[in-house]
Amino acid sequence: MSTSGRLTEDRLIAKFFAPFAGEGAFGLRDDAARITPRAGHDLVVTVDAIVADVHFFRDDPASSVGRKALAVNVSDLAAKGARPVGFVLSLALPDDWREPWLKEFAEGLHHAARVFGCPLLGGDTVRAAGPFWVSVTAFGETPAGTMIHRFNARPGDAICVTGTIGDAALGLALRKYPLTEWARDMTLEKRVYLTDRYLHPQPRIAAADVVRRYARAAMDVSDGLAGDIAKMAKASGITAEVDLRMIPFSAAARLALDADPAQIDAIVTGGDDYEVLCAIAPENLDAFLAETKAAGVSATTIGRFCEGDMLPLFRDGSIEKRYEAGSYTHF
Amino acid sequence: MSTSGRLTEDRLIAKFFAPFAGEGAFGLRDDAARITPRAGHDLVVTVDAIVADVHFFRDDPASSVGRKALAVNVSDLAAKGARPVGFVLSLALPDDWREPWLKEFAEGLHHAARVFGCPLLGGDTVRAAGPFWVSVTAFGETPAGTMIHRFNARPGDAICVTGTIGDAALGLALRKYPLTEWARDMTLEKRVYLTDRYLHPQPRIAAADVVRRYARAAMDVSDGLAGDIAKMAKASGITAEVDLRMIPFSAAARLALDADPAQIDAIVTGGDDYEVLCAIAPENLDAFLAETKAAGVSATTIGRFCEGDMLPLFRDGSIEKRYEAGSYTHF
Repeated sequence: MSTSGRLTEDRLIAKFFAPFAGEGAFGLRDDAARITPRAGHDLVVTVDAIVADVHFFRDDPASSVGRKALAVNVSDLAAKGARPVGFVLSLALPDDWREPWLKEFAEGLHHAARVFGCPLLGGDTVRAAGPFWVSVTAFGETPAGTMIHRFNARPGDAICVTGTIGDAALGLALRKYPLTEWARDMTLEKRVYLTDRYLHPQPRIAAADVVRRYARAAMDVSDGLAGDIAKMAKASGITAEVDLRMIPFSAAARLALDADPAQIDAIVTGGDDYEVLCAIAPENLDAFLAETKAAGVSATTIGRFCEGDMLPLFRDGSIEKRYEAGSYTHF
Repeated sequence: MSTSGRLTEDRLIAKFFAPFAGEGAFGLRDDAARITPRAGHDLVVTVDAIVADVHFFRDDPASSVGRKALAVNVSDLAAKGARPVGFVLSLALPDDWREPWLKEFAEGLHHAARVFGCPLLGGDTVRAAGPFWVSVTAFGETPAGTMIHRFNARPGDAICVTGTIGDAALGLALRKYPLTEWARDMTLEKRVYLTDRYLHPQPRIAAADVVRRYARAAMDVSDGLAGDIAKMAKASGITAEVDLRMIPFSAAARLALDADPAQIDAIVTGGDDYEVLCAIAPENLDAFLAETKAAGVSATTIGRFCEGDMLPLFRDGSIEKRYEAGSYTHF
C-alpha cells in the first residue's frame, strides 16, 4: 500500500523517468519494452549494477551516480564494438530515499542517456532495506557476427589501451584521503581532474567502431589494468608482457608517480578506468592507432600477448613483477 | 580483493552459473552477451527484481527463489505474446551469503530456465550490505509489430484472465498466519496447493501465442487483479466492470471464501497471481477461449471494459465496490 506522502511506483516512474523514455518504451506506460535491431545486426547485451558504499559514496552528487550507472554499461558496449541502442534499469530504493535525490539521479541518468545516445526503455523499482542499488541492462548493436569478445587474443598481438590509466584510482584515493602524501603539492585543478575521472567515467563510444573493425579481442578496463589483462589472457589461453613505462598517464597521474613511484601498483591494480583494452594483430596496429586518433581517442601500445599460462608479466627496466591479486574484486 | 575462503566473482560465476549458460553467452567467459532475434521479429524486454523480505522469505527454499526470479519475468513476456529467448541477471549477495544457498539458488534458476526455454545469457554479481537482491532482465521474441501492450483495451472488450485468481495471496497469508480462521478446516493438500502457488508462479507461456493473436491489450496479474485491471483501464483511457462471481477460483480458494466471504477483498487486491489479464474484442472472444483451452490453459471472462474514467467497478449481485488502493505496492 502506498505510504503517507510517498509516491507509488507508478507515480514515481511517471514523474521522474517517463519524460526521458525513448522510442520502444511506450512512455513507460507498458510493462515491457520493444527493441527492433536493424536488419543484419546483432544485439549486444551487458548488465552491471552499482551499489551505495561499494561503487559510490552516499554523498556523491546524485546526478553523478545516475550518470555512472549508465556509463559503466555503455563502456562495456563500446569495448564490444557496439553502438548503444538503449537500456532498462532496476532500482532498489532504501527506506530513507528522498524525492530530491531521486530527481537529481534521474536527471543525471537522462543527461548521460542523451550524451551516450542510449535512451531509457523500461525499468522496475522496489523499496527494500539496505543501500541504494541500481542495475542497468544496456543494449548495443553490431553488424551480424562482428561483436568483439574478450577471449580471442593471440600470441604476438599488441596490447593497446585507450586514454590514460590510473586517474580514477588516484581520484578515489584522494576522495578518501585528501591529505595523502603524493598529492601534497598537487594543484586544485589536478585534484579535481583526478576525482572527476573517478566520479564521471567516459565510455569510449567514439572508439567502438574502430575497435570493432580492428580488435581481435577487447574489453573495458574496469577492475584494474593488471587484472583485466590477466582475464583477457586467461580467456584466450595465453599470457602477456606489459612495459610499465609505456602505460599512458595523465599529467596529474605523472605528478603523483613522481612524488611516490610506489603508486604504480595502485594505478595498475586500481579500477574504474573505463578505457578500452584490446588485442591488435601486428599487421593492423598502425591502422588501429591512426583511426582511433582520427576518431578523437588516444590509444597506446603497452605490451604484447605471448604463449604461456603464467600471470602477465609487468616490466619496468630490469624490474619484473606479476600482480597476484591482479584484479580488484568486491568479494 | 578476495577474502579468505570466499569465491571471487569469476570463480563464483564459473562454478554456479557458467554450466547453465545458453548460446550467445559464450560460457559467460565474455563480459557481454549476444542476442540475434530471428529476421522479421522484435525483441520484447522486461525487467523485474525480487528482494529478500519483500518478495520472498529468507527461509524460502533457495531453489524456489531462483525459480521465482525468472518466472515473474517470463510471466511478463507471456502476457506480451512473446516467446522467451533468454535472460541476464544481476545479483547482490549480502555479507552473510553462503555457498550452499547460492548453489541451490542457481539450480532452481537453471531448472526454471530449462522448463521455460529461457537460457541464462550473462550477469553481474556484487557483494553489498543489505538483503539478497536479484534483478532479471528477460528477452522474448514476437513477429515484428505484434507485441501486445497494456494500453489498447477498448470499451466493449471482454476482460479475460487465465487460470485462477487469489491462490498466491491466500498462500502468502497461510505462510504468515498458519492458524488463520478461514483455513481451520482446510486439508494439508489444499494448504500445500495454496502456498505452492505463492512460492512457484506458473508463467502462462502456453497461452502467449493465443494472447498475441487475439488480445487487444494484455499484462500479467502480479500486483493484484483489481489494481492491474485499473492500470490497464487507465492506460487505455477507459474503465471497467467486473463481476466478482465470475472470477475463477481454485477449489482451495473456494473453500477459503466459503469459510470467510470477506477474503474476496484480499483475493482481488492480493498479488503474485502471475496469470494473464487481457482485453478481447467481442468478435474474437469465442476463438480466444477455445484456443487457450486447446493450448492447455483455462481462460475466463470476468467483465468488460467500458467508457469512463472512474476506478473499475466490482459487482457481487447488488453489492458494488471500487478498490481505492487497488494495487499492492511496496512503496
